[in-house]
Amino acid sequence: MNKLELSVSPMHRICKKAGADRVSEEAAKELAKILEVIGVKIAKEAHDYSIHARRKTIKAKDIEIATRKVMEK
Amino acid sequence: MNKLELSVSPMHRICKKAGADRVSEEAAKELAKILEVIGVKIAKEAHDYSIHARRKTIKAKDIEIATRKVMEK
Repeated sequence: MNKLELSVSPMHRICKKAGADRVSEEAAKELAKILEVIGVKIAKEAHDYSIHARRKTIKAKDIEIATRKVMEK
Repeated sequence: MNKLELSVSPMHRICKKAGADRVSEEAAKELAKILEVIGVKIAKEAHDYSIHARRKTIKAKDIEIATRKVMEK
């Protein structure tokens, strides 16, 4: 993973939603990196579920079940 | 949480990174919603750690420790 898919500005907004006043640029980048890693994990599981269901398209229900699996590990 | 902070286009790219060919619009929205919820959880924990360390700014190390806490629950 070289280029990050998530940009830092939404990370600042997410931190503000969480009650933070100030967030360092490094912290925003770290959060973007982490959310992307979690996102790819969830997407991989979702992809497996879609293949299992003989579909070529990932649907919302695949994301839901994949999230439960990734977050409960 | 009404307006989502994360947009859908990076979600499509994240799914492609995970090996998926096609992703429904609803699935991309679901992933954006989920990553935002996880992001806010991590940011809340990080905010608590920064306050505990008598800082007003969230730093990268706060995000790291908060992630371990949120993901191991």
